Amino acid sequence: MRETEVLVSFRPSSKEVYVLRGTRLVEAAAGAGIVLELPCGGEGICGKCRVKVAQGAAEPTATERRQFSPAELQAGWRLACQSPVCGPTEVEIPATSLAAAQYKILVQTEGAAAPASDDPPVRKRYVELAPPARGDDAADMLRLERALEKSGTGSEPCRHDAARTGSGEVPVPVFSSPLTVDLPLLRELPARLRELDFRGTAVLDDGRLMDFEAGNTTADAFAVAIDIGTTTLVAMLLDLGTGSEWAVASRINPQTRFGDDVLSRILHVRQNPGGLRQLHEAIVLAVDEMLGELCLQAGIPRERIYELTFAGNTTMQQLLCGVDPSWLGEVPFVPAGGRGLVFRAAELGLHIHPRGIACVLPVIGSFVGGDTVAGILATGLADAAAPTLLVDIGTNGEIVLMAGGRLSAASTAAGPAFEGARISCGMRGSAGAIEKVAVDGRLRINVIGNVPPVGLCGSGLIDVAAELLRHRLLAANGKLQPPDQLPGNLLPDLAQRVVLHDGQVSFQLVAPAETAQGQPIELTQRDLRELQLATGAIRAGIAILLRRAGLKPDDLDRVLIGGGFGNFIRRSNAQRIGLLPSRIERGRIRYMGNTALAGARLAALSRRARTLADELALRIEHVDLSADAEFHRCFAESMIFPET
Amino acid sequence: MRETEVLVSFRPSSKEVYVLRGTRLVEAAAGAGIVLELPCGGEGICGKCRVKVAQGAAEPTATERRQFSPAELQAGWRLACQSPVCGPTEVEIPATSLAAAQYKILVQTEGAAAPASDDPPVRKRYVELAPPARGDDAADMLRLERALEKSGTGSEPCRHDAARTGSGEVPVPVFSSPLTVDLPLLRELPARLRELDFRGTAVLDDGRLMDFEAGNTTADAFAVAIDIGTTTLVAMLLDLGTGSEWAVASRINPQTRFGDDVLSRILHVRQNPGGLRQLHEAIVLAVDEMLGELCLQAGIPRERIYELTFAGNTTMQQLLCGVDPSWLGEVPFVPAGGRGLVFRAAELGLHIHPRGIACVLPVIGSFVGGDTVAGILATGLADAAAPTLLVDIGTNGEIVLMAGGRLSAASTAAGPAFEGARISCGMRGSAGAIEKVAVDGRLRINVIGNVPPVGLCGSGLIDVAAELLRHRLLAANGKLQPPDQLPGNLLPDLAQRVVLHDGQVSFQLVAPAETAQGQPIELTQRDLRELQLATGAIRAGIAILLRRAGLKPDDLDRVLIGGGFGNFIRRSNAQRIGLLPSRIERGRIRYMGNTALAGARLAALSRRARTLADELALRIEHVDLSADAEFHRCFAESMIFPET
Repeated sequence: MRETEVLVSFRPSSKEVYVLRGTRLVEAAAGAGIVLELPCGGEGICGKCRVKVAQGAAEPTATERRQFSPAELQAGWRLACQSPVCGPTEVEIPATSLAAAQYKILVQTEGAAAPASDDPPVRKRYVELAPPARGDDAADMLRLERALEKSGTGSEPCRHDAARTGSGEVPVPVFSSPLTVDLPLLRELPARLRELDFRGTAVLDDGRLMDFEAGNTTADAFAVAIDIGTTTLVAMLLDLGTGSEWAVASRINPQTRFGDDVLSRILHVRQNPGGLRQLHEAIVLAVDEMLGELCLQAGIPRERIYELTFAGNTTMQQLLCGVDPSWLGEVPFVPAGGRGLVFRAAELGLHIHPRGIACVLPVIGSFVGGDTVAGILATGLADAAAPTLLVDIGTNGEIVLMAGGRLSAASTAAGPAFEGARISCGMRGSAGAIEKVAVDGRLRINVIGNVPPVGLCGSGLIDVAAELLRHRLLAANGKLQPPDQLPGNLLPDLAQRVVLHDGQVSFQLVAPAETAQGQPIELTQRDLRELQLATGAIRAGIAILLRRAGLKPDDLDRVLIGGGFGNFIRRSNAQRIGLLPSRIERGRIRYMGNTALAGARLAALSRRARTLADELALRIEHVDLSADAEFHRCFAESMIFPET
Repeated sequence: MRETEVLVSFRPSSKEVYVLRGTRLVEAAAGAGIVLELPCGGEGICGKCRVKVAQGAAEPTATERRQFSPAELQAGWRLACQSPVCGPTEVEIPATSLAAAQYKILVQTEGAAAPASDDPPVRKRYVELAPPARGDDAADMLRLERALEKSGTGSEPCRHDAARTGSGEVPVPVFSSPLTVDLPLLRELPARLRELDFRGTAVLDDGRLMDFEAGNTTADAFAVAIDIGTTTLVAMLLDLGTGSEWAVASRINPQTRFGDDVLSRILHVRQNPGGLRQLHEAIVLAVDEMLGELCLQAGIPRERIYELTFAGNTTMQQLLCGVDPSWLGEVPFVPAGGRGLVFRAAELGLHIHPRGIACVLPVIGSFVGGDTVAGILATGLADAAAPTLLVDIGTNGEIVLMAGGRLSAASTAAGPAFEGARISCGMRGSAGAIEKVAVDGRLRINVIGNVPPVGLCGSGLIDVAAELLRHRLLAANGKLQPPDQLPGNLLPDLAQRVVLHDGQVSFQLVAPAETAQGQPIELTQRDLRELQLATGAIRAGIAILLRRAGLKPDDLDRVLIGGGFGNFIRRSNAQRIGLLPSRIERGRIRYMGNTALAGARLAALSRRARTLADELALRIEHVDLSADAEFHRCFAESMIFPET
């Protein structure tokens, strides 16, 4: 086959691969071990996978003509997800198009550098069975049980039962909880055991035989923890034996094209006959592609993944499962399931081990889902002795209060502002994002990935708003001051950044010449209104939960920050804009990273953690904020930025 | 549609039905509620479904021309499985062609007139759920759990847990063992609950929600117990609520066309690439048709059957499950599974409730299967205080000895003689079978169903052999005396029945003029050799088991007789030919009927019975007779009929 394949070489990595003509560049790169950004799922929409083809560029597609200027196309710029290989090709990959690395940061989670769990949901055990013989004619499955028993499989106690072999001489120990097997595997087992000379690796899901593999594969057992966020998906490949992380993949939730928050997706389902299927298939396909990406990164086949654990909000989890979320979108907002779900991954069309399992964490209520349960699990919130608040800042803001031995939880529709959506220059926290803004004589910015800035992510947005408030460019009511009403003593660098477009005030963060795309990066009045809404929703939610528990913000011992971008926010700035209670000392506010993923990771690695998750979900009081008489007034008040 | 349908009326029942032209008479009859004999599965082979078409007979098919004489065809005789409806038709159905009735006898089982069990594997519960409301936004599944808890579903203890409704006022009791649900039902549940105004019947398989049905259907819950014999299949429809029997269906195992005993079927699988699939599909199709027949008899839809329980020998069970039995056919004879299996009936392609379950009883060894486990269950053998023997006389003869607190079991390849196969005038115990033969001055016979005799079934065969031995027409070595060597003082009626065909001696039971088919019913020398083999195998098996336990036949307290035709045999005659130990007094020999079916019935109705079956299977010592040094000598000795 090599004759018909052509060489594609990549710079700066100098990696090479032979592929068939017609292969998309993104697949060629994957074949060479290079994973590109594909937040839009390879549909040519986001333009994140741009590469420069130095030699052998194909004719640009219509999609590429929309994404690039003629000069750029002339220079060889193409979308790796669109452009095919036509012959020997040389490709330059800019750092901004490389995936995943930056997400390593997001998945750091305190207290979740989970070591090997002692009760993984899936175990492997290498066994050598005594082959059948005259006088030892026990059934294949019982023979396997016996071998597993001898090898000391598990926590299950065993009993030594009456003999049942032909000779009656050998007492056969049997599991007190029997080993079960499904029909397809039982059909394969007798021939396989004999092919393998009765030696191999049993894969066990509790008392169920999931597979019997050739050789000793005990070191190759993986699970994947998956955070299905409304905006962002993150998947982490975990070694079931050691608990260690092998690879991380992430992408934009492709459902965003049907609506960028939970309610708009529920609406899509309610208004379109095929809507549920569209949303369900979009998330399943994206997850399946991410699984492929993880396997590629780690160099393992999909069959070595035996288990998936999902954490997401209630709507995301129902859409993943193909369960109509319509009743999550109307009073009194009722989820379909409550407890955690366990089923075959194949039932969703996800390609892992053919008998691999999928677990979906339990939910607390219609808008407080498995992601929050995961967060409680990851942060140990249920064990907090003093009043502690957990805030997960995402498209939905989830808030959990542990106080006086009781857990209560609520959610607020913060909207996707913190994930970069609905903000004119917004983007998620990936390469090119301005993640930090500070004023130190002049405005200074920090960009993820050491590349020219592309846009502003959530943490940068909070920073800018806080600095604008401090320098009185932004009023407490959220109004950006026009150029002719700037405060006195304003730093010249800030003053020159206040611009007018068609009578609308904007604040310019980066001038056109300094950005990746040659366009200015500016914050508009409308962007600030979005931020007010997002901040106000979370602030009001916190206020209601505290009030119901009879507490004041001062009574809080700790505030834990979760959410995809939690690690990046500056506490003082979050307090300045009112996102976090302002009267708690900074040292008591702690970043917990992506707690949904961290909790999913714990549940993926430990059966006890899963049981605990179910128990927690049933224990937590779900507070429906929209049913709280005071919520609307409180929300309105919370829209006003705090006075210093 | 009625315009294009034509009337078919049946005599003597006067039932009528409208059907489309082209419908086979057997289906038309079924539509009128008349179930015909179809042991060959409607392939036109057995000729058991013969009917007389008085009006509107179709042209005979080639198959029918082979089965009937021109005069019979002229008189309107047809095969109901072949003949189509061509227009308005009148059909006379002879009693011999009516199915099922005679099988009512076979399924009578001592100690198994099982009343309602208190722990059926599938339960139904009618519930009215509190509809969701502001302040009560619990998930649909938890709401259902709560309602089931209130209605007192089960044996599960409950705990009253922390509140989790919106208001926090109502403490919600939850199952300590949660209610699980599979994805397809979870997807349907929210819409269904609302369509039904949150009222309906939950179908529960332990902690799994199997369905939620409209209205109160608690009275409509059925299971089917199925005896998959090597030669005969019997299925019994059971009311899960009351334990009562609603219908019985039976037919010849269609696998017989691939070989009439277990080993020949294993050979078929080993020698033919598609052999396993052929045998698997044949049994599945037959079972599925029987399920349809049961539903027709009882007037219930298939969806009301929630559970199937199968008992058969190890090979039959593996073939049912599609598991290659090859290793059951070579030393050291190893089954695939040991413990009982539970899976979805749909996985086998059996049409009951779409989420209905199928249970297959555990096996003891390669040739002592779930049917024997069922027999032990049905007879309570494991509780016997004094030495007790259970003998199941079928194509495989299974023998279980309970002595000194230990159970041991063995099987012998008796062959199908007792089920009428390999006997020239043999037939199974259905209408037309000579089931009893006695000599009282002259030879007297009794025929099942009060119809002209068709052939000889197993019990009749034993009777004839015993009488021939008594009257010295048959020597101990199995030789039938020729007409010129008859003993003195022989009754004239017996003497005249000894005939020679081509030098071969036969004994005529019924003269041609008195039989249904106008052919004589005769027992040949070869028939008697088959009987010797079948009897000798069982006799030798009993001898070995007793010897291993250090017992003599005299030590036996009781002998229990199982097997499809167990009810019909005369104990003294069975003892006379050596099938049963001769020195045990007759009152200690008890008929237990079809113990495989009776045990499957118990397991179908009770979860505890299933657990007990698993425990029994592991406790029993499996004796491989072929590995016993003394078996072959013992078998040879047992071929000789006992001297009086």
